[in-house]
Amino acid sequence: MTRRVLIVGGVAGGASAAARLRRLDERAEIVLFDRGPHVSFANCGLPYYVGDVITDERRLLVASRELFRDRFNIDVQTEHEVTGIDRATQTVRVKDLRAGAEHDEHYDVLVLAPGAAPIRPAARGLDLPGVFVVRTIPDTQRIRAWLEERPRREAVVVGGGFIGLEMAENLVRRGLEVTVLEKLPQVMPPVDPEMAAEIARHLRTEGVQLRLGEGFRDIEPATGDRLAVRTDRDATITTDLVILALGVRPEAALAQAAGLAIGARGGIVVDERMRTSDPKIYAVGDAVEVRDVIIGQEIILPLAGPANRQGRVAAEAIAGRWARFRGVQATAIVSVLDLTVATTGASEKGLRRAGVTDFGAIYLHPGHHAGYYPGATPIHLKLLYSREDGRILGAQAVGQEGIDKRIDVIATMIQMRGTVHDLAEVELCYAPQFGAAKDPINIAGMMAANALRGDMPLADWTQVGRRGAVLLDVREPDEFAHGHLEGAVNLPLSELRRRIDDVPRGREIWVYCAAGQRAYYAQRLLMQLGLDVKNLSGGFTTYTMMREAGLLP
Amino acid sequence: MTRRVLIVGGVAGGASAAARLRRLDERAEIVLFDRGPHVSFANCGLPYYVGDVITDERRLLVASRELFRDRFNIDVQTEHEVTGIDRATQTVRVKDLRAGAEHDEHYDVLVLAPGAAPIRPAARGLDLPGVFVVRTIPDTQRIRAWLEERPRREAVVVGGGFIGLEMAENLVRRGLEVTVLEKLPQVMPPVDPEMAAEIARHLRTEGVQLRLGEGFRDIEPATGDRLAVRTDRDATITTDLVILALGVRPEAALAQAAGLAIGARGGIVVDERMRTSDPKIYAVGDAVEVRDVIIGQEIILPLAGPANRQGRVAAEAIAGRWARFRGVQATAIVSVLDLTVATTGASEKGLRRAGVTDFGAIYLHPGHHAGYYPGATPIHLKLLYSREDGRILGAQAVGQEGIDKRIDVIATMIQMRGTVHDLAEVELCYAPQFGAAKDPINIAGMMAANALRGDMPLADWTQVGRRGAVLLDVREPDEFAHGHLEGAVNLPLSELRRRIDDVPRGREIWVYCAAGQRAYYAQRLLMQLGLDVKNLSGGFTTYTMMREAGLLP
Repeated sequence: MTRRVLIVGGVAGGASAAARLRRLDERAEIVLFDRGPHVSFANCGLPYYVGDVITDERRLLVASRELFRDRFNIDVQTEHEVTGIDRATQTVRVKDLRAGAEHDEHYDVLVLAPGAAPIRPAARGLDLPGVFVVRTIPDTQRIRAWLEERPRREAVVVGGGFIGLEMAENLVRRGLEVTVLEKLPQVMPPVDPEMAAEIARHLRTEGVQLRLGEGFRDIEPATGDRLAVRTDRDATITTDLVILALGVRPEAALAQAAGLAIGARGGIVVDERMRTSDPKIYAVGDAVEVRDVIIGQEIILPLAGPANRQGRVAAEAIAGRWARFRGVQATAIVSVLDLTVATTGASEKGLRRAGVTDFGAIYLHPGHHAGYYPGATPIHLKLLYSREDGRILGAQAVGQEGIDKRIDVIATMIQMRGTVHDLAEVELCYAPQFGAAKDPINIAGMMAANALRGDMPLADWTQVGRRGAVLLDVREPDEFAHGHLEGAVNLPLSELRRRIDDVPRGREIWVYCAAGQRAYYAQRLLMQLGLDVKNLSGGFTTYTMMREAGLLP
Repeated sequence: MTRRVLIVGGVAGGASAAARLRRLDERAEIVLFDRGPHVSFANCGLPYYVGDVITDERRLLVASRELFRDRFNIDVQTEHEVTGIDRATQTVRVKDLRAGAEHDEHYDVLVLAPGAAPIRPAARGLDLPGVFVVRTIPDTQRIRAWLEERPRREAVVVGGGFIGLEMAENLVRRGLEVTVLEKLPQVMPPVDPEMAAEIARHLRTEGVQLRLGEGFRDIEPATGDRLAVRTDRDATITTDLVILALGVRPEAALAQAAGLAIGARGGIVVDERMRTSDPKIYAVGDAVEVRDVIIGQEIILPLAGPANRQGRVAAEAIAGRWARFRGVQATAIVSVLDLTVATTGASEKGLRRAGVTDFGAIYLHPGHHAGYYPGATPIHLKLLYSREDGRILGAQAVGQEGIDKRIDVIATMIQMRGTVHDLAEVELCYAPQFGAAKDPINIAGMMAANALRGDMPLADWTQVGRRGAVLLDVREPDEFAHGHLEGAVNLPLSELRRRIDDVPRGREIWVYCAAGQRAYYAQRLLMQLGLDVKNLSGGFTTYTMMREAGLLP
């Protein structure tokens, strides 16, 4: 008996499910429908195709219809939209978008991989020429055509998330003056505001107009083929091109119409085998809700890596094998004009939102490799860990080099339920071009372990100036003169032992330096002398980031 | 009661122990002796100082005597050699190398961090002008002076390990013609020969003369201030400069003379708290034997990262805290003329030497990032895993970019006792500049998991042509025409389904393609048709590496 497996959507999750299933089951009949002209295309490359970094569109096509047919005996039907599911008869309604005809197809197993759709607000002007989203190859073809048709000078990107920033970068590459409009007070919502502040600063340095805390209202035609973007502050930005990058929402309508369970976040509900509430229907990719392994809640995470793994798990399950999707930890990265930001696990705000309170956070700002070797650039790293058991809860990093590596190592540690003590012990590659004898990873683990053991009590940055603590700046006087925390006392570490009697007594001391190391040395000395000392983690560098983000009084 | 802690040797482990101890114990008297002029210098930067990548010698000095005094109240005595230990009286004999005077110093706790000494064979000519080792800053000053004194055209590096190759690179940078002499048939002894073959090929491409399987005999003066290096094949290489990079041996003489236990490898024996056989004496760094966590045997691993962590553990133990050194997994990296090789855990030959037989090995050769984004360069990755439980035993990678990241992730996974199934599930950073939706790490895990589950039985490369198997090449005809395994039948994957009757029956089939993916697809198809198919892991790319290494018939 040949089983008939129909798959709806052929990009990451759907294509993975199809190919994996064929490798496990040579006899199944596998038909893959996609309403677009392409399957298995490189979604994540689209902004770079706009930016002409990727110049040949064909490079975006990972696998063609013919390849699916010849290699895998998989029948790919592009420009065929599945418009309905009849679960009782196990049929789907398929519309041929070229011919217009509709017909029914029977399935033994159905896999839904419809993806996610760009969020389009209910606003006027979204259909005007020059207003685009970035989700498919045809979308980018339209943007490229618009740019090539005649000179365009300015662009507005609505939304400061991953796609928004990647589009900003690529439009800058194309020579446009770019304005990014973001309703939230920060770019890159998955990271904490002080980390996002580094990116914001960098974007501004690179000439991008960043309008934070300012939302999109609508678009009107302006003279000369231009567009007038209106914001919720009643400002108007006249521009040549608008990219809507407000995020995506799961394409769950088909599933919902078929009566499948839909979750609170609007995604299709699946079990750990990627099975929906109907045992004959699986769902994978951007349309499903997945379990966040840190906070233990269901989330929407439209990323290619998890989608691929989900497709694989669904195929295993359909083939009758044991497999489970372990959930997600939301590892993500974006590079914007040579600054990279990456994250894995929970953010601080994500923890708070989930009601987690017993966590610690440390900041460090080491070079990406040994300082004695030329070319080291700083990594700004924030590590979040459980104060109960030292487990790593999340990490975020911003910098020019070595960001992906550090976040990948921490992502691996999170997967394996590692603690900060484990991080302190990781044995990483060290040659001076690549890292340090104590890699930033080790230092992060050591710092957090010091905090957990009580060797390095931490102060709360948001309480600076609000508590009665003495602010002790242990940098050298010339550093202090260039800027310091209001009210801080300067007593350089290099003089601290000689001038120990100058240390204010009787009050809690909050110590800081440039990035944290000297402050820690001072703290250890003073604590052993019986003083009550807390560390402002990451020192003046963290302070600068916090201030930029508006987190300080 | 003030405890007196004496530390012998102030580079990585000794300096770490001293600084950490001060942070834990403000009252201890800490004295650090070093027979050299510097403490806490950047050992691993020395080759780059010779190569003028690091131009300022002061950058190599991580911390000075004054810094130790002012920051940590640590008394650093440079150019003071500890010449003997009297354990009964708890004193050491100290010789002031400038004044020549000797005196005794009492200790409550002694920490030995004497490091390792370059191996000098018993051969003539090692003291001739122009013959150097690379272990200290003065060593490199002498090499630089020799190069600057007058033009030098040629150099011989004796030894093809880490330091040998780094020196070869840096002498090439200085414009010299470099010959590397290595007694073993491969460079980089810690990695397997087929991986080392990639480096050998690259070195030769870059103009380095590589003489493998040819040992050093001695050196004689030659005319015009030159040197004649004689090899064990009775060849003579006339040159201007000789670097001896034959590895190092633990400086255990002081410990041995004091009656401390010395291990089979010649290093000081310590427990997991870094305590020697005398409870008042600790030892850390290159001079000690450490437990290899993969093979469970004691080894010598002269690397800065573990030395630092050992120093830290010793300080914790001295301060009466709980701490243990978890052992080593021998993570290491070297970059040679823009090619990087890194390793973590055991090599295949290391496993065999340790008597481990129930392991699997897979090869893959993916791009370091998504192929659709320009600039991807190949990573040659070998993963070793236990066939019993899937645990990762080791990994090696060679390539231009992203090598450190992949080995660091696997190193983390090994530390956490992860399996190949865990690797398949790692959620890593993905944007097209950094990786792929299925990162090389995931693919490695999936491949090994496929092998373990029996979905992808592996053939033994060393048996190619020795067994009666059909060699099936599923690449396209033009690829086949450019080179293939002797006796192979060409049947492209793209035609395999149409031409299924052309597949030879009745004999085992060993299938391969360029790098393994198409072969795997073919294998799954043929296995499901009931054929007995094995995969030549990594395909023709692995074959080329194996052949270069002389591992094939």
